[in-house]
Amino acid sequence: MATIALLHGPNLNLLGTREPTIYGSMTLEKIEQKIREHAGATHEVRALQSNHEGALIDFIHTAREWADGIVINPGAFTHYSYALRDAIAAVKLPTVEVHLSNIHTREAFRHTSVIVPVCIGQVCGFGWRSYLLGIQALLDYLNDQAQG
Amino acid sequence: MATIALLHGPNLNLLGTREPTIYGSMTLEKIEQKIREHAGATHEVRALQSNHEGALIDFIHTAREWADGIVINPGAFTHYSYALRDAIAAVKLPTVEVHLSNIHTREAFRHTSVIVPVCIGQVCGFGWRSYLLGIQALLDYLNDQAQG
Amino acid sequence: MATIALLHGPNLNLLGTREPTIYGSMTLEKIEQKIREHAGATHEVRALQSNHEGALIDFIHTAREWADGIVINPGAFTHYSYALRDAIAAVKLPTVEVHLSNIHTREAFRHTSVIVPVCIGQVCGFGWRSYLLGIQALLDYLNDQAQG
Amino acid sequence: MATIALLHGPNLNLLGTREPTIYGSMTLEKIEQKIREHAGATHEVRALQSNHEGALIDFIHTAREWADGIVINPGAFTHYSYALRDAIAAVKLPTVEVHLSNIHTREAFRHTSVIVPVCIGQVCGFGWRSYLLGIQALLDYLNDQAQG
Amino acid sequence: MATIALLHGPNLNLLGTREPTIYGSMTLEKIEQKIREHAGATHEVRALQSNHEGALIDFIHTAREWADGIVINPGAFTHYSYALRDAIAAVKLPTVEVHLSNIHTREAFRHTSVIVPVCIGQVCGFGWRSYLLGIQALLDYLNDQAQG
Amino acid sequence: MATIALLHGPNLNLLGTREPTIYGSMTLEKIEQKIREHAGATHEVRALQSNHEGALIDFIHTAREWADGIVINPGAFTHYSYALRDAIAAVKLPTVEVHLSNIHTREAFRHTSVIVPVCIGQVCGFGWRSYLLGIQALLDYLNDQAQG
Amino acid sequence: MATIALLHGPNLNLLGTREPTIYGSMTLEKIEQKIREHAGATHEVRALQSNHEGALIDFIHTAREWADGIVINPGAFTHYSYALRDAIAAVKLPTVEVHLSNIHTREAFRHTSVIVPVCIGQVCGFGWRSYLLGIQALLDYLNDQAQG
Amino acid sequence: MATIALLHGPNLNLLGTREPTIYGSMTLEKIEQKIREHAGATHEVRALQSNHEGALIDFIHTAREWADGIVINPGAFTHYSYALRDAIAAVKLPTVEVHLSNIHTREAFRHTSVIVPVCIGQVCGFGWRSYLLGIQALLDYLNDQAQG
Amino acid sequence: MATIALLHGPNLNLLGTREPTIYGSMTLEKIEQKIREHAGATHEVRALQSNHEGALIDFIHTAREWADGIVINPGAFTHYSYALRDAIAAVKLPTVEVHLSNIHTREAFRHTSVIVPVCIGQVCGFGWRSYLLGIQALLDYLNDQAQG
Amino acid sequence: MATIALLHGPNLNLLGTREPTIYGSMTLEKIEQKIREHAGATHEVRALQSNHEGALIDFIHTAREWADGIVINPGAFTHYSYALRDAIAAVKLPTVEVHLSNIHTREAFRHTSVIVPVCIGQVCGFGWRSYLLGIQALLDYLNDQAQG
Amino acid sequence: MATIALLHGPNLNLLGTREPTIYGSMTLEKIEQKIREHAGATHEVRALQSNHEGALIDFIHTAREWADGIVINPGAFTHYSYALRDAIAAVKLPTVEVHLSNIHTREAFRHTSVIVPVCIGQVCGFGWRSYLLGIQALLDYLNDQAQG
Amino acid sequence: MATIALLHGPNLNLLGTREPTIYGSMTLEKIEQKIREHAGATHEVRALQSNHEGALIDFIHTAREWADGIVINPGAFTHYSYALRDAIAAVKLPTVEVHLSNIHTREAFRHTSVIVPVCIGQVCGFGWRSYLLGIQALLDYLNDQAQG
Repeated sequence: MATIALLHGPNLNLLGTREPTIYGSMTLEKIEQKIREHAGATHEVRALQSNHEGALIDFIHTAREWADGIVINPGAFTHYSYALRDAIAAVKLPTVEVHLSNIHTREAFRHTSVIVPVCIGQVCGFGWRSYLLGIQALLDYLNDQAQG
Repeated sequence: MATIALLHGPNLNLLGTREPTIYGSMTLEKIEQKIREHAGATHEVRALQSNHEGALIDFIHTAREWADGIVINPGAFTHYSYALRDAIAAVKLPTVEVHLSNIHTREAFRHTSVIVPVCIGQVCGFGWRSYLLGIQALLDYLNDQAQG
Repeated sequence: MATIALLHGPNLNLLGTREPTIYGSMTLEKIEQKIREHAGATHEVRALQSNHEGALIDFIHTAREWADGIVINPGAFTHYSYALRDAIAAVKLPTVEVHLSNIHTREAFRHTSVIVPVCIGQVCGFGWRSYLLGIQALLDYLNDQAQG
Repeated sequence: MATIALLHGPNLNLLGTREPTIYGSMTLEKIEQKIREHAGATHEVRALQSNHEGALIDFIHTAREWADGIVINPGAFTHYSYALRDAIAAVKLPTVEVHLSNIHTREAFRHTSVIVPVCIGQVCGFGWRSYLLGIQALLDYLNDQAQG
Repeated sequence: MATIALLHGPNLNLLGTREPTIYGSMTLEKIEQKIREHAGATHEVRALQSNHEGALIDFIHTAREWADGIVINPGAFTHYSYALRDAIAAVKLPTVEVHLSNIHTREAFRHTSVIVPVCIGQVCGFGWRSYLLGIQALLDYLNDQAQG
Repeated sequence: MATIALLHGPNLNLLGTREPTIYGSMTLEKIEQKIREHAGATHEVRALQSNHEGALIDFIHTAREWADGIVINPGAFTHYSYALRDAIAAVKLPTVEVHLSNIHTREAFRHTSVIVPVCIGQVCGFGWRSYLLGIQALLDYLNDQAQG
Repeated sequence: MATIALLHGPNLNLLGTREPTIYGSMTLEKIEQKIREHAGATHEVRALQSNHEGALIDFIHTAREWADGIVINPGAFTHYSYALRDAIAAVKLPTVEVHLSNIHTREAFRHTSVIVPVCIGQVCGFGWRSYLLGIQALLDYLNDQAQG
Repeated sequence: MATIALLHGPNLNLLGTREPTIYGSMTLEKIEQKIREHAGATHEVRALQSNHEGALIDFIHTAREWADGIVINPGAFTHYSYALRDAIAAVKLPTVEVHLSNIHTREAFRHTSVIVPVCIGQVCGFGWRSYLLGIQALLDYLNDQAQG
Repeated sequence: MATIALLHGPNLNLLGTREPTIYGSMTLEKIEQKIREHAGATHEVRALQSNHEGALIDFIHTAREWADGIVINPGAFTHYSYALRDAIAAVKLPTVEVHLSNIHTREAFRHTSVIVPVCIGQVCGFGWRSYLLGIQALLDYLNDQAQG
Repeated sequence: MATIALLHGPNLNLLGTREPTIYGSMTLEKIEQKIREHAGATHEVRALQSNHEGALIDFIHTAREWADGIVINPGAFTHYSYALRDAIAAVKLPTVEVHLSNIHTREAFRHTSVIVPVCIGQVCGFGWRSYLLGIQALLDYLNDQAQG
Repeated sequence: MATIALLHGPNLNLLGTREPTIYGSMTLEKIEQKIREHAGATHEVRALQSNHEGALIDFIHTAREWADGIVINPGAFTHYSYALRDAIAAVKLPTVEVHLSNIHTREAFRHTSVIVPVCIGQVCGFGWRSYLLGIQALLDYLNDQAQG
Repeated sequence: MATIALLHGPNLNLLGTREPTIYGSMTLEKIEQKIREHAGATHEVRALQSNHEGALIDFIHTAREWADGIVINPGAFTHYSYALRDAIAAVKLPTVEVHLSNIHTREAFRHTSVIVPVCIGQVCGFGWRSYLLGIQALLDYLNDQAQG
């Protein structure tokens, strides 16, 4: 049984209302429900959405106590929050970066993630399903490690 | 009658004391008073100054409920806060970016705004009057839209 | 009472007919009329539109004799006419740069102005109203200077 | 029921023997078996590994006749094969790009994919499981499209 | 029957005398005669050579009244005259850019045209015949459009 | 009488079906027929379309035996196949590069051709007619050379 | 007697546990104790560690009231927090930037500090001793200033 | 006896009044008088100052008829007028570029001249004396050529 | 006794006929004969020239079975074939890159090799003798390794 | 007891006379005296100032025999002397780089040190005290190493 | 009467023998003789040619004692010797940079001088006469200064 | 019989002791002995190692008198000594550049040589054997020239 820290970066609280042609029309609440269904009863998911970089970092620090891994959609912080990157590197929890949209088909500044170099991997472009795939990737990773 | 969300980014609380040769000697309080006089009785201005990127984003999100438009001086966030940019793009309120100084006569990093691409337009270089011009630009825009 | 030199760069004579989704549907003649109404009886506006860089420079030189300030929409010269820039720097008249469109949402080459570094400030993105705001900014500036 | 075109780019025939610390120790044959198990009886997977850019393009062209979507690990072609990109764009089949390693933790040239802009999305960093996640992403996408 | 505006940029009046190994030994007069022969009796060609950017722009503006399309060899303006570019974009006449020399085998600054993005297409490298090919391309284009 | 080697790069076999708003709706077969009609009975055209860079190079090598010149649409190879460039430079046959679309109005990577520096010239933007213009340019060139 | 504002940026609360090969194994608490011992009884040190950029800025603003100078390890904010830079520039307190690691031997993005241009100087690479050296540098500076 | 074409680019008519700390306080008239004195009775100097790029080019073209060489201060055209460069290259007259100020101690854009590659050499930084040195350099060059 | 895989990239089949001032006048056949003479009876050389990137990769893969090392002149693939690079890295055979010409005195794109980072070393500039030197370097390397 | 090699790069012999607003008014002799006082009787300092890159390198080489560490102010060599860098890397003595001025507030070329990547750390901006801090940093480092 | 320090950088001792098409066929000895003739009896010229950067710097330092100004041809040091630049800036003697060839028509690296920003001005392109013009420029400058 | 000038740049006197994993464990003395053995009795080798750029240049100049060619390992001067480059170009002796390590697998700055463009060719990556191969390459070159 694994406990997963699920983080959503800035503006993701507006999901379902914000530019649905890019981000889809499902709300964050609904997505989290889908994630919990997918993770199933044996796994726990503790989530935080925040528009505050510091709050996300604080949460990652506390996750050292209770989490087995992290799934994070850093939103716009993807492109400049070296602080978030350092937080993930510091706690040494296996982390998966996810994005709803295919960041490579959008404005040039969105193509680069300063966070992905400290993650296991990245999933992008599949709308809310990117989260499910990210959760699955993390659980498989944890399982493989456990079986080592 | 319009309601305007007025945002001041980091360090603007120090206006009037900070580098007056660049930013002028009028305090933020005084500027807001000038703005309210200019906007007049028929328009409402709700203001926030914060040094916290997250607080500015939260405020923009709530503004969806009550504001007709935004005037923002993002301060140093102008140059890197893609999160602020996404917040403005997400709430879809018409937004005007203002700067006290002519950012193009200063250090190279100040020439670029990551926020202006999601705004209607930009006013810079006229000291505290940049705010009045920005407010005027927004009110005219709203009026034109209303008369459509 | 102030006398303002108003300059329109290349292709602005086509305003109202050229790409109205970008530049609006008001003709230059109409805009100048709006400007004169806005400036009012106490201020004089002398205008020149030209597709010739040299003609604009000549006009700026003569303005030393009679103008208190300049409002200029340099059109495409914005991006490469260092000669226009030098002319403004040489006559030492306070100058405001205006643009109809938000140049920061367009092609990359339009984001940069070689002229704005020698201006007081810049107004862009508000269609023909950019001119009115620019005139207002200049008149306020002149007034502030006069009051010292 | 869906038919999936599965493409493996250059050198992937050596999987399991080549730099196992980066690419894992599972052979391509084994991975394809895993994929087929995962896809299940209701879906068909037709695969091609080739070191020849042209062969991969020819295969993509034929896939227009029989495939519902593409999962591709372009190997080193990721970084320069604009011809492969054009092939995917031309056949208009929904495509998912996968990578075994987290390309963003490796040499700089590997960070950029010229192919991902014409794909739905990308999965990287999860070893052979990247394929399973990519297949899943495509099947879900096809299912969502079918349900409209 | 079509009327074509034919423009020659700076220094092209010297053709036949200037660096013949690059530009050939035929004079502009001779080339225009060739063009008129090629265009034939059913089409009219009105030409302007000028070393003045503004004169070329003025001519393009008037061409709105009488021309069906433009063939232009912008000479050195190719590489920096955004004003010429805007003129072509503004009048919305189909335009073909031609060059006598293969600009891609010369100095680096000559490889880029700021004008070609607002043209239908470009022909370069075939000496005075580039003009004939450009005229032909425009006439065919106009014909295709007419036949819808 | 001239013999022309006509080469079509990757994905051009899909012409008429692939993104017709960019590439037009005429098939390659039809275009070749048009070319042969245009070249007329006195000239021979031997054509190859291939998605394999090596096959195009092999064909160019053999062309040394029988061709007077080359017309090539390198497709996506335009932007990176230095091998194709070297092949053309090596056989020393006069070569014309053609493109259906105006490559300068598309993605940035398409603006540059690594092949055009070893060609006589380039024609782009006129749909299938670019081929006819390219053939014409080559025949004229050969004729001029013959007449010395 | 001097009062020093001591600031620690994001993730520095994890010192002693985070990547000890890079940052050493001494905790922040221990380092602060060392600093206080070094500063001695005659000088006061008021410290703040925060993962929130805004909290650091607020603290700097209040320091205007009571501090003689600042020693700051901005952590990852070093590389992008122009807001922190502006805060330091605005309060005009002499500031020393310190880093535990030699930032020039690490990833490229860590080589650049946007904050150091508004500081007196920088000390980096000496582990926790960088703090002591930074404090010493500031105290010496204040002493020199006092002695004129 | 030599005849020299002396050209002054944009804004140089304002010499003596414009930014004297950079350009000195001597008027263009006075400088030309100095030049004529220096050149002496045996040499003729024909001068043109213009703010119009085209006028300078026209003048250079006519100079083919009567001049032995050119001395030019291109002013701001130095940095972008490829048309002026082509004019000089086309007439093949030996040309010396002069600047009043040391362009290398000023804004970055002023460091580069697009014109100097087609000149014999360049003299900059010596105020109005740069002209005398440039004239001298040209006369010596002509003399050397004559003596072959 | 060593077995060496000798690879020649695209267009090298034309050696002796192609641009002899750059590549020399000796044919590939002759060079291979020289190499075999140099390697002597105790060493075996198995060679492949191909214009097909995939064929070279396939050959490298098979070489794992029988070769002790590789000498490769990648021709134009030097500059972009990351697939070839990965093939060499994958088979882990010691590899020497050779070039006939001094690639650093030619066009800028030829200065960079994407393949050399996975080789032992590089020899360039000595015409056909570059091959002999490369063979010698590899044999010496193998000998040193054998002697540990 | 430690022996320290103290190196001063080019032009530092002029200290106290050269641009005192940047470098202070203390002579090198005086600074060395301060350093010796600071190091105290138990440590030895052997110093060299030279304007010759080679002399500094020779000195570093000899220091292998007698020094425990190096403190170096490379002066202008900071920005380009890869030879000095290699010397430091080769002798493997712990090295501290110091600068009198805050190099990050000066011309862009001074922001980068090619030497610091082979040093323990860097101290800059504190005038002659940078030396004392550097000596202290080195002594502490040596002490820590000794105590293991 | 003025005393001038005349410096020649590396390889200039070979003048007259080295690449005469670029540097002319006059020896350094002969040039110095010409300079002395030009300077005349009232002025003294003390010269040094050295291939050692340090020797040139040492000489500049001593020149503080006896020279009124410097004329320097830094040779290849022009492009990278920041130490030479600092030496000139430190001694504060008015300096003129000269070059035999027009550095702007040669390899790209030769276009930039790191030394000219600390000089009064630059003369390039006139062969050995560049020295005479440089001497003249310096003498005139000294004369103007003397006359205030 | 040939006489070869053999030059070793800065820090190469430390060979055998400096970073042996990169540069090998053989001393310079030993390498020179190997070279002399390889060159044999019929050829003479005169060697110089120096950490002084000027000394290497002086030596190259004298080599004009007695050498037939140069083999040089410029060490760190490879990357910035344009003066060394000019020396080699000036004496016109055929020159071979050698490096012990494969410079392309090391830090980015080491990938570029400013010297190789004036050499016949380059050998890198084979440890001390790079010297032998370089000597061989030069002797073969001289022989070929002699047989011309």
